[in-house]
Amino acid sequence: GYATVDHHRALRQGVPEVIFGEGKSGEQIAGIAEEMVRAGTNVLVTRIDAHKAAIVGHRVPSFRYAPLARTGSVELAPPPKRPCAPVAVVTAGTSDNEVAEEAAETLSALGLEPLRIYDIGVAGIHRLLHRVEDLRRASAAIVCAGMEGALPSVVGGMVATPVIAVPTAVGYGTALSGFTALFAMLTSCASGVSVVNIGNGFGAAMAVHRMMPKASQAIEPPKTAG
Amino acid sequence: GYATVDHHRALRQGVPEVIFGEGKSGEQIAGIAEEMVRAGTNVLVTRIDAHKAAIVGHRVPSFRYAPLARTGSVELAPPPKRPCAPVAVVTAGTSDNEVAEEAAETLSALGLEPLRIYDIGVAGIHRLLHRVEDLRRASAAIVCAGMEGALPSVVGGMVATPVIAVPTAVGYGTALSGFTALFAMLTSCASGVSVVNIGNGFGAAMAVHRMMPKASQAIEPPKTAG
Amino acid sequence: GYATVDHHRALRQGVPEVIFGEGKSGEQIAGIAEEMVRAGTNVLVTRIDAHKAAIVGHRVPSFRYAPLARTGSVELAPPPKRPCAPVAVVTAGTSDNEVAEEAAETLSALGLEPLRIYDIGVAGIHRLLHRVEDLRRASAAIVCAGMEGALPSVVGGMVATPVIAVPTAVGYGTALSGFTALFAMLTSCASGVSVVNIGNGFGAAMAVHRMMPKASQAIEPPKTAG
Amino acid sequence: GYATVDHHRALRQGVPEVIFGEGKSGEQIAGIAEEMVRAGTNVLVTRIDAHKAAIVGHRVPSFRYAPLARTGSVELAPPPKRPCAPVAVVTAGTSDNEVAEEAAETLSALGLEPLRIYDIGVAGIHRLLHRVEDLRRASAAIVCAGMEGALPSVVGGMVATPVIAVPTAVGYGTALSGFTALFAMLTSCASGVSVVNIGNGFGAAMAVHRMMPKASQAIEPPKTAG
Amino acid sequence: GYATVDHHRALRQGVPEVIFGEGKSGEQIAGIAEEMVRAGTNVLVTRIDAHKAAIVGHRVPSFRYAPLARTGSVELAPPPKRPCAPVAVVTAGTSDNEVAEEAAETLSALGLEPLRIYDIGVAGIHRLLHRVEDLRRASAAIVCAGMEGALPSVVGGMVATPVIAVPTAVGYGTALSGFTALFAMLTSCASGVSVVNIGNGFGAAMAVHRMMPKASQAIEPPKTAG
Amino acid sequence: GYATVDHHRALRQGVPEVIFGEGKSGEQIAGIAEEMVRAGTNVLVTRIDAHKAAIVGHRVPSFRYAPLARTGSVELAPPPKRPCAPVAVVTAGTSDNEVAEEAAETLSALGLEPLRIYDIGVAGIHRLLHRVEDLRRASAAIVCAGMEGALPSVVGGMVATPVIAVPTAVGYGTALSGFTALFAMLTSCASGVSVVNIGNGFGAAMAVHRMMPKASQAIEPPKTAG
Amino acid sequence: GYATVDHHRALRQGVPEVIFGEGKSGEQIAGIAEEMVRAGTNVLVTRIDAHKAAIVGHRVPSFRYAPLARTGSVELAPPPKRPCAPVAVVTAGTSDNEVAEEAAETLSALGLEPLRIYDIGVAGIHRLLHRVEDLRRASAAIVCAGMEGALPSVVGGMVATPVIAVPTAVGYGTALSGFTALFAMLTSCASGVSVVNIGNGFGAAMAVHRMMPKASQAIEPPKTAG
Amino acid sequence: GYATVDHHRALRQGVPEVIFGEGKSGEQIAGIAEEMVRAGTNVLVTRIDAHKAAIVGHRVPSFRYAPLARTGSVELAPPPKRPCAPVAVVTAGTSDNEVAEEAAETLSALGLEPLRIYDIGVAGIHRLLHRVEDLRRASAAIVCAGMEGALPSVVGGMVATPVIAVPTAVGYGTALSGFTALFAMLTSCASGVSVVNIGNGFGAAMAVHRMMPKASQAIEPPKTAG
Ligand SMILES: Nc1ncnc2c1ncn2[C@@H]1O[C@H](COP(=O)(O)O)[C@@H](O)[C@H]1O
Ligand SMILES: Nc1ncnc2c1ncn2[C@@H]1O[C@H](COP(=O)(O)O)[C@@H](O)[C@H]1O
Ligand SMILES: Nc1ncnc2c1ncn2[C@@H]1O[C@H](COP(=O)(O)O)[C@@H](O)[C@H]1O
Ligand SMILES: Nc1ncnc2c1ncn2[C@@H]1O[C@H](COP(=O)(O)O)[C@@H](O)[C@H]1O
Ligand SMILES: [Mg+2]
Ligand SMILES: [Mg+2]
Ligand SMILES: [Mg+2]
Ligand SMILES: [Mg+2]
Ligand SMILES: [Mg+2]
Ligand SMILES: [Mg+2]
Ligand SMILES: [Mg+2]
Ligand SMILES: [Mg+2]
Repeated sequence: GYATVDHHRALRQGVPEVIFGEGKSGEQIAGIAEEMVRAGTNVLVTRIDAHKAAIVGHRVPSFRYAPLARTGSVELAPPPKRPCAPVAVVTAGTSDNEVAEEAAETLSALGLEPLRIYDIGVAGIHRLLHRVEDLRRASAAIVCAGMEGALPSVVGGMVATPVIAVPTAVGYGTALSGFTALFAMLTSCASGVSVVNIGNGFGAAMAVHRMMPKASQAIEPPKTAG
Repeated sequence: GYATVDHHRALRQGVPEVIFGEGKSGEQIAGIAEEMVRAGTNVLVTRIDAHKAAIVGHRVPSFRYAPLARTGSVELAPPPKRPCAPVAVVTAGTSDNEVAEEAAETLSALGLEPLRIYDIGVAGIHRLLHRVEDLRRASAAIVCAGMEGALPSVVGGMVATPVIAVPTAVGYGTALSGFTALFAMLTSCASGVSVVNIGNGFGAAMAVHRMMPKASQAIEPPKTAG
Repeated sequence: GYATVDHHRALRQGVPEVIFGEGKSGEQIAGIAEEMVRAGTNVLVTRIDAHKAAIVGHRVPSFRYAPLARTGSVELAPPPKRPCAPVAVVTAGTSDNEVAEEAAETLSALGLEPLRIYDIGVAGIHRLLHRVEDLRRASAAIVCAGMEGALPSVVGGMVATPVIAVPTAVGYGTALSGFTALFAMLTSCASGVSVVNIGNGFGAAMAVHRMMPKASQAIEPPKTAG
Repeated sequence: GYATVDHHRALRQGVPEVIFGEGKSGEQIAGIAEEMVRAGTNVLVTRIDAHKAAIVGHRVPSFRYAPLARTGSVELAPPPKRPCAPVAVVTAGTSDNEVAEEAAETLSALGLEPLRIYDIGVAGIHRLLHRVEDLRRASAAIVCAGMEGALPSVVGGMVATPVIAVPTAVGYGTALSGFTALFAMLTSCASGVSVVNIGNGFGAAMAVHRMMPKASQAIEPPKTAG
Repeated sequence: GYATVDHHRALRQGVPEVIFGEGKSGEQIAGIAEEMVRAGTNVLVTRIDAHKAAIVGHRVPSFRYAPLARTGSVELAPPPKRPCAPVAVVTAGTSDNEVAEEAAETLSALGLEPLRIYDIGVAGIHRLLHRVEDLRRASAAIVCAGMEGALPSVVGGMVATPVIAVPTAVGYGTALSGFTALFAMLTSCASGVSVVNIGNGFGAAMAVHRMMPKASQAIEPPKTAG
Repeated sequence: GYATVDHHRALRQGVPEVIFGEGKSGEQIAGIAEEMVRAGTNVLVTRIDAHKAAIVGHRVPSFRYAPLARTGSVELAPPPKRPCAPVAVVTAGTSDNEVAEEAAETLSALGLEPLRIYDIGVAGIHRLLHRVEDLRRASAAIVCAGMEGALPSVVGGMVATPVIAVPTAVGYGTALSGFTALFAMLTSCASGVSVVNIGNGFGAAMAVHRMMPKASQAIEPPKTAG
Repeated sequence: GYATVDHHRALRQGVPEVIFGEGKSGEQIAGIAEEMVRAGTNVLVTRIDAHKAAIVGHRVPSFRYAPLARTGSVELAPPPKRPCAPVAVVTAGTSDNEVAEEAAETLSALGLEPLRIYDIGVAGIHRLLHRVEDLRRASAAIVCAGMEGALPSVVGGMVATPVIAVPTAVGYGTALSGFTALFAMLTSCASGVSVVNIGNGFGAAMAVHRMMPKASQAIEPPKTAG
Repeated sequence: GYATVDHHRALRQGVPEVIFGEGKSGEQIAGIAEEMVRAGTNVLVTRIDAHKAAIVGHRVPSFRYAPLARTGSVELAPPPKRPCAPVAVVTAGTSDNEVAEEAAETLSALGLEPLRIYDIGVAGIHRLLHRVEDLRRASAAIVCAGMEGALPSVVGGMVATPVIAVPTAVGYGTALSGFTALFAMLTSCASGVSVVNIGNGFGAAMAVHRMMPKASQAIEPPKTAG
């Protein structure tokens, strides 16, 4: 067949395989989603446009589409809430919000609570200074920025929270479709900032998922040595 | 003067400013280290060659140089041990070990325990299969690879542990001084792998530092919502 | 005229000139195909879209179009079967299947039998482990992968079969339209993997064609020294 | 001959031709400098290493070499002081100071007063906040930064002063020998920041020279319309 | 909300936040514009296409669209005229005029007077020689060129006026969508030419804004040292 | 330890692990070679310079160094001869011979016979025409070329032999350290040419190894379907 | 106005300004063409699509459009014939013919006679060998090739005729939109091949124009020293 | 052997094979030179450093080395003088002179007379205006420039002479080791400028060689049609 679904993934990683919508037809996505629903797992599709989403929606009951995030999902059962503080999802400018929404939707599907802090980039840095306490209290911060991608450096220099930087393709010319922000974030003078692919809000949320305690760990002590 | 030391950093981030050794003279590094020692903080210098290290060693008592890692340090007091399992430091091949040592030295300076797992790359994948349990039990895995940089994808697909991928410059021609490994890691089909700059073992360790409970948090419950 | 058909090619290479469909009009393709049919040779066209295929179909009888592979063909006589085991055609993900189909269609036109093994990429490596025997028994393996392009490395490390790696443009951002997979495959730590252009399923099949015994060689001993 | 000195330049631009030291031998530089001294103009050489400077020093009396800036000069007469406030020369880190010194030396040769503000990059942004008043009062700010090159964005967002951004080659891997900082500065979200070539402290000072009133204009009103 | 308008900007920089139209919907632009109009500030939007402009025009009274420049504006009160000579806006060829118009529209919004000098590129250099006096008398020259981007070098070598070079995407093949012009301008042999992003007429005008005396400074003496 | 030798490889691939000499010290190489000799396998090291080779030679008896090829080897027993015609090793120019020698040395270590055909590039194409019969009779052709890398296209168009193209770094400027030859070979209009990394003579020989009958297969019929 | 037509060009260069159609509206092109017709000169427009050509055709009488070449022209008087042999215009494959037609149309407009030799690329080199005499007798050869761009090397190695190489964007993946052919041609092992921009058939014809005797020089002796 | 000398080349191209010195040892160069001397042809070696030249000088009598040009030659008989005006060899700056000397030495070896015009770049354009008559009278102009590479555009716009542009690696940062000049020259707005590889003075001279009448053609009429 055209696909070999990885049904073990929820066991290995605490979350089922997520369907990458690009380069697949609406029919193929629907077919994979149906196979997962039959197996009793929730479904998440990323990078799916409105046209393909309509095709899936016709075949898969209770498929919900989030147009700004360009994600689709089937929630057979709500994900168990995770025992930790909200995860900040930050943008430098309004044009970065789409990528941030992909992260926020994925966090929700993982039982993590997103806290949206949008349009506080470094051209008017007082906007960031007003939100420092929110960032300090967050479990982690997913920071989305295009153009020169400076925001994660400044956030990472201010707080000790885990920072996942997400470059976006916002800008033109030397913004290089997000590569300048990507390279800037990787060579950030603030240390301990880690980075995901351009526009990969999904991957940033998954990285936070790996760090956070599992639902069942709520009452367990932190994983310690020995 | 030639430098404005950031003396607040230990407060903000739980670790003092780390000195970037490239592009500074041995004298400048020694001067900054002396100022930090006077202020009573431990010192860590990265990317410092043997020649500069000798200069610093003459001026700064108890300066210790790690030649493979190319780091130098002054430990006025040992860092408090962190309440978590060891951090795996993995390499694909022997040629990646230098970058891994920079990560391991930094982890030690942060009170985290490195677990070295070297030379287990995908050309002979049974070597990796033998170490899966170690990876599963680790607090996090720092995975260093050059050439095609495939190891973090395979590790990330096998275990739910946080994975920080570190590309190295090992290889020639299309290895592109580490850029191929970097781009491969960023576009990894294993989700939730986050990435740092080429050869940045230090940054990978700092990213783990942000995720792990602080020494003082050992007896506190995990940071929860609300 | 607009074309100088290379009528000697079947003699030199055991297969007639294959028409490259890009940058030619439907009319030009039809004209060249007609000239080849008149000369009594089978026709294969690659990288031809549905629109041009319809134009050719109107002028050239028994022209068959394969939409997923984007190839068209006229089979005046079936190609003689080649005396060797099937050729594995492997993909990392469903989105790589189009390129794989171009390879599979070309193999069939050359008298070689394709064995399709789809969607077994390294994010869930047990899927690959289940198919190792098939890969070991194959005459050769054409391995198609986008994103980080790690699958040929892992396959090449496991079996001694000839491996032709085909990068695809699947992925976004640092996938670089297939260049990351291409470079990764070229700098693979598994040795003896050779590589063709991004999306060039046709070329991979032709490379296998060069290695395999000719139909008429079935009863001849292998070409030996002296 | 090997050179055609542009003796009109002081007339056209208020400053004589400046000798670019790279790719010229010490003898060629000395020859050009001698010709200029004979013509009665001050001499400035940029990007000249210590070895060539020694050669020039032997032939040209009162040639002064500034090793950190890598400039050399002959001052037949001091340049007339310009009627404006000092020009801030700012660095993100100590490793950027060499480029800044090239700018500062050039400013002095043009009759402009440099105000050095070094090592105040965005990883510890309070260091910048302490110097905002100095930046506001400056005639212009030349801001030198490597790595992610974020400092000019933050400075440009805080003050209305003319900002000339100078990328430096500080950093490794994705710092791309200064190209990441260059591209970041060009796509800065702070508007009206203009940029010069990587490491071009000289050019930044010359750009300020074009903007500032000439010595002879001190008592003239600003150049107005009509 | 989706935006955090920077209402302090007019205070800090003498001009309100300018809305970057790319990557925002017409509705989002209209919402931000309305908020600014309510706050009593003039509005300027850049890189806005005719379709979005129509949406904004329906919601925001007296919104004016300049189609060649692709800017839109609301002028609650005319900007105070600045006490300086006109600013030359120069193009190498007719195809560069769009970028020049963005600069000219922005200058007007800032109270500066543009002087358009179009299509005088170096392939017919007598066209430039005829306009040297205009360039010499201008407060500054914004020079827009695509292809090999040579015009700012020639202008910068002829006059002492501040020169802001704006690369455009005019040309094909090795013009590299404006990167060749950008790199040529940055490595110009004429010194003191500073550069903005490809197609960034807006940024060039803002850089001139930073250099020119403010309206209220007309009768003040130039800002001097001490 | 610093290495995890893959002792299974000879079983899986018919040839033991080959040591990549770059990025390893002479001592590390010697240590790995000693471990392999103890295990009774032949040793091959590639990309090892004369200095490291001397270190290994002191510790490992009967270590032989080939300076042009930059390979070293220990032959405990001669490799069994393979039942096939010689493998042509071709260069475009004398400057490509080093890479060709790496291929030839590796072929010999694999029991395959190299046939050297050097300096017959396309600037004087009659030199190639004189050797067509040799190329036609070869089991495979490894074709090494730098600069524009045209030779594999011409060879591939003339003969039906398997062609492995090896780009070299010969040339300057737009030769791009071998990338132009690499890209040219990948986009060759001669079909079925497959390619390895720049300068990777070793990999080309290994690719031929995968295609050729094993020594033990000499009297077996070709591997057929079913 | 939007244009400053260079009316001196025919005097300086023996041919009037040629209008670059990209980035100009149909109306602008028509306006410039009308101004040139009024001045009594022939008109040539390059890179003009069918839509703009229709607009110009409505306003400018006897405007002729060549759709394959994408050129338009007004011939008030036929150009005087040049006293030299025809100029060969060669393509590697049918897909390169469009660029060749731009060259051929421009040659005709310059009074030079094109000799079309199409689809004789190196994958079937006997096609080229059949045309060597034509190439030897030509005044110059304009050789257009995409993919690996090898044809000019082979032609340049066979004949002493001036060779102008024109890379085309034919191919995919590593063909890099013509950059691989461009770089290959520039680093050609055949010496004395000079190169123009990707797809610049116009420029190749103009380069030939510069080399060839002018119409009025027919009876003059060649331009000799002294 | 290591080389297959192309002894037919003087017949095909009017000049013997020229030895490319890079990537060959001094011994290999001497061996090839000796073989050519034995065959009675003059020898030219390019890109040969002083060290290799000394080795060749010891073995080959009357070998002459030109250190600035980095060429070496053996002149058994002076080349016959060509019946045409001198060839201008122009540089933008003194740092470009080395490349120009390679062109000049090659011209001399071909029987063509170089006319050196050095250091007249566009930063002081009056220097060029003074030499326009020399350029107009030359048979061809070889124009060498680094940095932004603007000089060939300006020369090509002023005179109708054939212009061969040679980019040089002069400059830093965005000069990109000559690629910016190369791309600028290829996308020059002056039409009919053709280009050779970065630093390829030799190739430029060879391109002129192809255009110029042969010595034996002095009394023949120009090669005409039919
Ligand atoms: N055409 C333009 N090019 C570059 N930057 C711009 C342009 N127009 C507006 N900007 C800047 O981009 C920032 C807008 O970011 P955002 O919050 O996404 O609207 C503003 O602070 C402006 O200074
Ligand atoms: N937006 C995304 N970006 C990157 N990777 C993704 C994204 N969405 C899903 N994936 C991963 O891509 C893989 C899907 O590959 P495929 O078999 O082609 O569907 C899954 O294993 C996911 O972990
Ligand atoms: N197809 C072409 N490719 C490159 N340059 C061209 C082309 N057609 C015309 N030109 C040149 O481009 C210049 C036109 O610039 P513009 O003033 O924008 O029309 C002219 O001087 C022509 O020499
Ligand atoms: N999909 C393909 N990818 C690469 N090369 C191809 C492809 N299809 C056909 N070709 C080759 O391209 C050449 C066609 O060139 P042309 O004369 O333009 O048709 C043929 O000789 C084929 O060997
Ligand atoms: Mg905003
Ligand atoms: Mg190993
Ligand atoms: Mg899948
Ligand atoms: Mg510092
Ligand atoms: Mg024009
Ligand atoms: Mg040779
Ligand atoms: Mg063809
Ligand atoms: Mg000079």
